[in-house]
Amino acid sequence: MRLSRYFLPILKETPKEAEIVSHRLMLRAGMIRQQAAGIYSWLPIGKRVLDKVCGIIREEQDRSGALELWMPTIQSADLWRESGRYDDYGKEMLRIQDRHERDLLFGPTNEEMITEIFRSYVRSYKDLPLNLYHIQWKFRDEVRPRFGVMRSREFLMKDAYSFDIDYGASQTAYHRMFVAYLRTFARMGLQAIPMRADTGPIGGKLSHEFIILASTGESQVYCHRDYLGLKVPGEDVDFSDAAALAGIVDTWTKPYAATDEMHDEAEWSQVAEADQLAARGIEVGHIFHFGTKYSEPMKAVVSGPDGKEVPVSMGSYGIGPSRLVAAIIEAFHDDNGIIWPKAVAPFDVGLINMKPGDADCDRACEDLYAQLGGRGLDVLYDDVDQRAGAKFATMDLIGLPLQVIVGPRGAKAGEAEIKIRASGERLTLPLDAIVNRVADER
Amino acid sequence: MRLSRYFLPILKETPKEAEIVSHRLMLRAGMIRQQAAGIYSWLPIGKRVLDKVCGIIREEQDRSGALELWMPTIQSADLWRESGRYDDYGKEMLRIQDRHERDLLFGPTNEEMITEIFRSYVRSYKDLPLNLYHIQWKFRDEVRPRFGVMRSREFLMKDAYSFDIDYGASQTAYHRMFVAYLRTFARMGLQAIPMRADTGPIGGKLSHEFIILASTGESQVYCHRDYLGLKVPGEDVDFSDAAALAGIVDTWTKPYAATDEMHDEAEWSQVAEADQLAARGIEVGHIFHFGTKYSEPMKAVVSGPDGKEVPVSMGSYGIGPSRLVAAIIEAFHDDNGIIWPKAVAPFDVGLINMKPGDADCDRACEDLYAQLGGRGLDVLYDDVDQRAGAKFATMDLIGLPLQVIVGPRGAKAGEAEIKIRASGERLTLPLDAIVNRVADER
Repeated sequence: MRLSRYFLPILKETPKEAEIVSHRLMLRAGMIRQQAAGIYSWLPIGKRVLDKVCGIIREEQDRSGALELWMPTIQSADLWRESGRYDDYGKEMLRIQDRHERDLLFGPTNEEMITEIFRSYVRSYKDLPLNLYHIQWKFRDEVRPRFGVMRSREFLMKDAYSFDIDYGASQTAYHRMFVAYLRTFARMGLQAIPMRADTGPIGGKLSHEFIILASTGESQVYCHRDYLGLKVPGEDVDFSDAAALAGIVDTWTKPYAATDEMHDEAEWSQVAEADQLAARGIEVGHIFHFGTKYSEPMKAVVSGPDGKEVPVSMGSYGIGPSRLVAAIIEAFHDDNGIIWPKAVAPFDVGLINMKPGDADCDRACEDLYAQLGGRGLDVLYDDVDQRAGAKFATMDLIGLPLQVIVGPRGAKAGEAEIKIRASGERLTLPLDAIVNRVADER
Repeated sequence: MRLSRYFLPILKETPKEAEIVSHRLMLRAGMIRQQAAGIYSWLPIGKRVLDKVCGIIREEQDRSGALELWMPTIQSADLWRESGRYDDYGKEMLRIQDRHERDLLFGPTNEEMITEIFRSYVRSYKDLPLNLYHIQWKFRDEVRPRFGVMRSREFLMKDAYSFDIDYGASQTAYHRMFVAYLRTFARMGLQAIPMRADTGPIGGKLSHEFIILASTGESQVYCHRDYLGLKVPGEDVDFSDAAALAGIVDTWTKPYAATDEMHDEAEWSQVAEADQLAARGIEVGHIFHFGTKYSEPMKAVVSGPDGKEVPVSMGSYGIGPSRLVAAIIEAFHDDNGIIWPKAVAPFDVGLINMKPGDADCDRACEDLYAQLGGRGLDVLYDDVDQRAGAKFATMDLIGLPLQVIVGPRGAKAGEAEIKIRASGERLTLPLDAIVNRVADER
C-alpha cells in the first residue's frame, strides 16, 4: 500500500480526553475515531489489526472444533423473558422498540439466542458435543464508557457456546476452550494467565478470566510467579483427548492466581513471598461453565442413550477482539509509539523513501516494494514528500515490526537500512540483500 | 469438515412461510434461521457462503483503490440532524434512546458518518481522490419484511463513499465503482445489468441499479438483448485510467436498460422488437452520485489548488451481501436444491461415504479426504450412517459444485464416482485419478 493513496490520519497532538496509553496511541496513529460516547469507527489501519486479531481467534476456535455462525445484533425481548434475564440485566441493556412497538434489544451477549437455535434443531445426544461461536458487535450501555475501545459501549465480541450431554462432557468442552484461549493469546505475543473469576450476570459456578499483566491494567491481580514460565500447548495439541486437555488445565490452574474479587488472603499467604506476583492486569478473555442455567428454563433438551430427555450442560466463552487490540498496545509500546507483535501488525514492513523524486531513491524503493510484495509481505510504502523527522516519527508511532529506509546517498551506493522497531537496532545492507533479510526477520 | 462434527440442520419439510425459492432453500439447507421478523442468524453453511461473497466484494473494492474501514452500527441522531435526514427518513429508521436519553439510531446507511470522518481529517485536494468502504450490519425497519434475507430488516451491506475535488473527478470515481461492480458480480457467476435508477432517500441525480434477471425477481425491468453478450472487464483493468473507465461505462450504458420506475416507453419503442428483453429482475447493487448533497450542509470542504475551499463531490455505492446470497440462489437452483457457482460455494466438494463402517469405503474416503484437503480444496465429508437416498438428497440440496461418491463395491474395485451438480453428469474413475480430476474441475 502506498501511503500517498492510503488514509492514515496521524494526529500530531496528544488528545486530551485519552486517559490511558492505548487510547492515546490508537487516536494518534489514526486507528480509531470516536463517533459518540463509547462508540468508535475503526479506520483503515485499525481495521487491519482487528482483522489479524480476529483471524487468529477464528483459527484457534476452528482448530478446537468450534463452528462459526453469525447471529444478528438485534434480539427479541421475548427470548430474554424466557430465561428470566430481561429484567435482571438492568440499564446496561440497550432496549429498543420497533415501528410496531415490539420490544427488541441490542444483544449484550447471546446465551438465549444460541440456546433457542440449539433447541430448534438438536434432539439427540448423538449430535453432541457441539460448540458454536460467532464474532459480532455487541452493545452494553455503560454509565461511563472510557479508555477508548478498552471499555466502549459498542464492541466486537467472539462468543462461543458449548452443549454437552452431562457435566463431565461439558467440563471437557470447558477445557477445550481453556486450551484454545492459551494458544490464541500466546500467538499474539501475550502471556495470559487464567484466574478464578466471578461469574456476574452470565451465571454458573466455574469461571476463569484470562488476564495479561500490564502496569496500566484496570484491576489488581495476584498470582504465582510460576505462571511466567509455563509452556503454552503447541499446534499439535489433541482436542479430542479429554485426559490430555484436563492435564493442561490442571497445570495452568494449580499455582495460585486470582483477581481482586476472588482473592483469598489465607491461600495467598501460603505462596512463598519470592513467588508472589501482585500486579495490575487487563482481562482479555472470560470463560464460564453454567450447566443447565439456560437449557432448563428454555427447554433445550436432548434424549440420552437411555432414551430419557435431559437438559444440556452448557458453557460460554468470550474474547473481545476490539478490547484486545488496546490490551496488546498496553503491553507493547514505548515513548515513540506502538510496537506490534508480528502476528497482529497491520503491515509487515514500512518502506520509507527519504526523498521521493530522487531517481535513485524512487528506483530502489519501487524495486523493493515490488519484491517484498512478491514475497507475500504486506508493505506500507511511504512515498510521500515530507521531512525526515516526520517520516520516522510516523513509522515509529504506527509500530510496524520492520522498517526499510532508503535515502539518496544509500540508494546511490546501492544500500539501504533495516530498522527493527522493537529493539531500535539498525543495519545497513546492500539493496539486493534487503528482501531476504526482511523475509527472515519476519 | 466431517459432517458428523458439523452443524447442518437440514429441514425435510418445506417451510410454509417461505414465499420464494431462495428463502425456501436457505431454510431447508440449514443456511439461516429467523430470530424475529426480518432478523436472521446465519448458520455455519450459510456463513461460509456469506464469507465467500464478502471476500469477492472486498477484493474488487480493494483492486479499485477503495480502502476498508469499519464504522459502528449505532449512530448519533445529531449527525443526521446536520444533514437534515433525521426527520426525512421516517419509520424505516430504528430510533433508540440510551440510558442518558440521548437519541441514537441503528444506521440504515452511513453518508453522514463518513462525511463526518472525512471532514475531521482531510483538508486538501492533495489527499483526494479518496474512497472509503465498510461491510457492516444495517437495519431498516420495513413495515413488512419478507422473502427471507432478500428483504430483511437487519442485513449486511457493503457501502463505499467517494470524495473528489470536483464533478469531473467524482464522475471518474463513479466509473471506478461501476466497473468494480461489473467484475464483482461476474466473479460470482452473475450477469448483472446496470440500469438507470431512482435515487430515493440517498439523493442525487445520477444512479444505477445493478440487476440480475430471474423469473422470481421483485421488479419488472426492460433492457436491450445486447447486454447478454457484453464482455466484463478483466483483472487487468486499469483503475487509474479515467478514459478507459469512461469507455467501459459508455459501452455498458449505451443500450437501453431501465427499471420499471425509470422506464420510458418512447425510448423503448426505438429498440427493435427482437432485441427487447422485458423480464423480472433482482437488484444486487446500487450506486449513487450526489455531489455536494452532504458535504455542503456538513461542511466537508477541502482547499483546492487555488487555495479556495470547496465542498467535496461525493458518491455512495452499495451492495447487500446477505441479499446477494439469496439472489444467487434465485439464479442458480433446480428442483433438487441449490447449484452454487464455484466461487461462492460453501465447500468445493462433497465426499459421500455410502457405507461408513465398511473397511474399503472408510479407507478410500479417509484417503480422498486427506488428499483433497492437501490440494487446498474445502471438502464436506459425509461420514454419517444414513440411507443412500437421504445422503444424495442432502448433497444435492446444499448444492456443492462437485460430489465424490464412494460405495462399497466401487471402493473394493478401487473406483469412485464424480458427480457434477450443475449438469448431473456422473463419471466413474479409479480412486487415484479422482483428486486430479476434482482439482481440474474446480
